[in-house]
Amino acid sequence: MPTAKRFPTAQLINVNERFFLLDCGEGTQMQLRKFRIRFGKINHIFISHLHGDHVFGLFGLISSFSLLGRKNSLHIYGPPGIKNILLGHLQMFSMELVFTLDIHELAPKRHQQVFEDKSLTIFAFPLKHRITTMGYIFLEKDAELNIKKEAISKYNLSLASITKIKNGSDYLTPDGIQVPNSELTKPPYKQRKYVYCTDTRPLKKINELAKNADILYHEATFLDRDKYLARDTGHSTTVQAATAAKEAGVGRLIIGHFSARYKDQVQHLKEAREIFSETVIAEDGVTFSIEKMRAPEVKN
Amino acid sequence: MPTAKRFPTAQLINVNERFFLLDCGEGTQMQLRKFRIRFGKINHIFISHLHGDHVFGLFGLISSFSLLGRKNSLHIYGPPGIKNILLGHLQMFSMELVFTLDIHELAPKRHQQVFEDKSLTIFAFPLKHRITTMGYIFLEKDAELNIKKEAISKYNLSLASITKIKNGSDYLTPDGIQVPNSELTKPPYKQRKYVYCTDTRPLKKINELAKNADILYHEATFLDRDKYLARDTGHSTTVQAATAAKEAGVGRLIIGHFSARYKDQVQHLKEAREIFSETVIAEDGVTFSIEKMRAPEVKN
Repeated sequence: MPTAKRFPTAQLINVNERFFLLDCGEGTQMQLRKFRIRFGKINHIFISHLHGDHVFGLFGLISSFSLLGRKNSLHIYGPPGIKNILLGHLQMFSMELVFTLDIHELAPKRHQQVFEDKSLTIFAFPLKHRITTMGYIFLEKDAELNIKKEAISKYNLSLASITKIKNGSDYLTPDGIQVPNSELTKPPYKQRKYVYCTDTRPLKKINELAKNADILYHEATFLDRDKYLARDTGHSTTVQAATAAKEAGVGRLIIGHFSARYKDQVQHLKEAREIFSETVIAEDGVTFSIEKMRAPEVKN
Repeated sequence: MPTAKRFPTAQLINVNERFFLLDCGEGTQMQLRKFRIRFGKINHIFISHLHGDHVFGLFGLISSFSLLGRKNSLHIYGPPGIKNILLGHLQMFSMELVFTLDIHELAPKRHQQVFEDKSLTIFAFPLKHRITTMGYIFLEKDAELNIKKEAISKYNLSLASITKIKNGSDYLTPDGIQVPNSELTKPPYKQRKYVYCTDTRPLKKINELAKNADILYHEATFLDRDKYLARDTGHSTTVQAATAAKEAGVGRLIIGHFSARYKDQVQHLKEAREIFSETVIAEDGVTFSIEKMRAPEVKN
């Protein structure tokens, strides 16, 4: 439930000024306006599951997009049933959109790629909640390889050879010796990775899927003392979220989706940080950045 | 459309600590929390029409009522079609409520009484918009009559006679002379009246229906210069709203439902006040009160 300070779930992911929306709880469009986000730039919306606190903002957002004369197609991804809900809604309210709504129903039980462009891949995978629920992984593609300066001089490489090597080819010397690509190049930047897990019981495979993620968002609806409630409602505790982060070896953990029963999140932070110190609280309007980092030099 | 400062339409009417909700745009439950209103006290919701900006908050509010373990029935009133939308929604989201939802579809073309208790009557009447739209009138019942002191001594009234006279009876003297009730009593308080008109084209009958209302809320989506746009979209201008207030002789006019095309409401207020000086702007979170007023003494 929303509180005086907290709206239902929605996250905006900005990848090089391309906007992706994760879930769309009631009031998302108002929050986007409040935080001065040009939400016309959102072309892709990913819904975790069909509970109201993750979906009820879609109707108003779609309606506003239409009033604003949106031209781009809007792609919405989510579990089976989402098409029926959205099309049913448009019909009930006799809404005629001025743009194309492209609804993608995901396979509920598979780890699958759902989006790809030249710099980013997005995957969906099943979580474990009371109803079909999907987690999402945002994985930056490797940037074009950087060629080592010493390799150019050592092999006296031509421009044509350099282009091929940058695209991943090995190099064949005039003497017929094959030099492996890894000896000639280095990735310029570390691949960035974000993993979004809500709503879910603790799930072993998250350790693997979130491996080395820069940020893992993991719901922590309950405190440790309410772990039986978490189990019964298909949610996680602070301790369970922090354990997932620790085992996956992520850079940072964001916890959120707190039950309205708790007055504040002091205890949540305390419990999680005892297990995983790099834990922060998801607060409305806060931005977390993953900086582009030089890939570490590997010395031979 | 909502803006950074303004949520879609919803008004809470507090009649002696009984709460009635007029319309329920997206985010209404968050605004109720923000303004610290104990919204569990809302038992009756009146919807003007089935456009998203007046309805999209209902789903989340109903869902929260259920999560909060609401016990009282919730009565929702609105145009035909509202039952289908609400029940369809509950079904699509497999929502099982822990309280009774009582949906009342109104006759779309009649002025009708929709609610009555011992102190209040609520009426609905058709407005003129692109789809069926209802206005609402909140009318306080006359309080029990006050008996004039001089009448008690003049006619030496018994307790039994006084009770009858307070309930409106005339008095028959021992000599058989009938004294009319109006000579014996006076109403202690002026009946309070609130009239809610959104969304609508200007409508002559509002002059009559809002006659002597303490407050008239009338939408003023557009400025006077955009009156053709108002006509084409089934809305009103500032000038049209103020003219209705003036002709109905209301105490105060509240204007709202402003198009997002206008940066602020300075010009709205100016235009309306030129015609009807007692005009104010509907701003999120603002409360307007109608004080209980002694009925004016009528001297013989």
